[in-house]
Amino acid sequence: MPLAHFFLRERVRPGDRVVDATCGNGHDTAFLAELVGAAGTVWAFDIQESALAATKARLAAAGYAGRAEFVLAGHERLAEIVTGPVGGVVFNLGFLPGAGKETVTSPATTRAALEQAAALLLPGGVVTVAVYTGHAGGLEEGRGVEEWAAGLSPAAFNVWRCRQMNRSDAAPYLVVVERVPA
Amino acid sequence: MPLAHFFLRERVRPGDRVVDATCGNGHDTAFLAELVGAAGTVWAFDIQESALAATKARLAAAGYAGRAEFVLAGHERLAEIVTGPVGGVVFNLGFLPGAGKETVTSPATTRAALEQAAALLLPGGVVTVAVYTGHAGGLEEGRGVEEWAAGLSPAAFNVWRCRQMNRSDAAPYLVVVERVPA
Repeated sequence: MPLAHFFLRERVRPGDRVVDATCGNGHDTAFLAELVGAAGTVWAFDIQESALAATKARLAAAGYAGRAEFVLAGHERLAEIVTGPVGGVVFNLGFLPGAGKETVTSPATTRAALEQAAALLLPGGVVTVAVYTGHAGGLEEGRGVEEWAAGLSPAAFNVWRCRQMNRSDAAPYLVVVERVPA
Repeated sequence: MPLAHFFLRERVRPGDRVVDATCGNGHDTAFLAELVGAAGTVWAFDIQESALAATKARLAAAGYAGRAEFVLAGHERLAEIVTGPVGGVVFNLGFLPGAGKETVTSPATTRAALEQAAALLLPGGVVTVAVYTGHAGGLEEGRGVEEWAAGLSPAAFNVWRCRQMNRSDAAPYLVVVERVPA
């Protein structure tokens, strides 16, 4: 399973509020909907109507239609839309599936969204950020994520950067931010 | 919780065989004994009788006395002693708690033990290696672990190196080796 799921499965609980900040084709939205159960809520953000439609169809097929709120907006509006503390927030940076190659997440809005996500976390909650560096601007975006993460207070957050060791240096990597459990 | 526990909790199941390759004061042995339950077995390796005695006492106090086999031997003898496939193997490198500062794990025996551990893993099973670099020889031992891990076949193993981003570069880090699930 994807590395991010080790963290999310351990920390997201039935009834939780969670966020898919970049829902794309909806794979992670469906995974989160499974974890939060019928009493939970997943906010699914995307700037493409087609992505939200694909995600909505995927959730309906899985029987999770009632567990998600679909938000046609960039994730930099997260704090404005999501109410209350959250158990987890998932980011997949880089290309938006199905969009043209010029449609990528951007360092400034990603940074704003990350700050809002960390601020909303419950104790023990996690933000996972999958960073892809193969596209123009990807390395810079990754550096921005790392700068932000490295600056988080170690009293409030545990932060890890996980790289695949037996694959190319260009393989995606994961940044995990955990709010220190109570 | 320690980062290694995110991986072990997801993959070690009741009834599993698992290994604490460096039991020290027995914290991880007790954690593994909880995960495998009454039907499972934890092999606890240490080269110090005092470490095994402390671990035995900790397990007895937790009600897990029957779940462990105590092995007074270096972990490079793992394959000779542990029979059958295992769900997880835990390594904590560096100093042995309670021993003198000259008593540390060594690159050659650690490498041998890692190779044996990976060979014993069930599909989906994980080896976790906490690397401490603050002692003489620690950086070299870490490099040895990384060289070994980087050389594992990506068709057979997923391998991650996880560093704490908001702490000193000298902070311990974790290497995780997962046998690709069936």
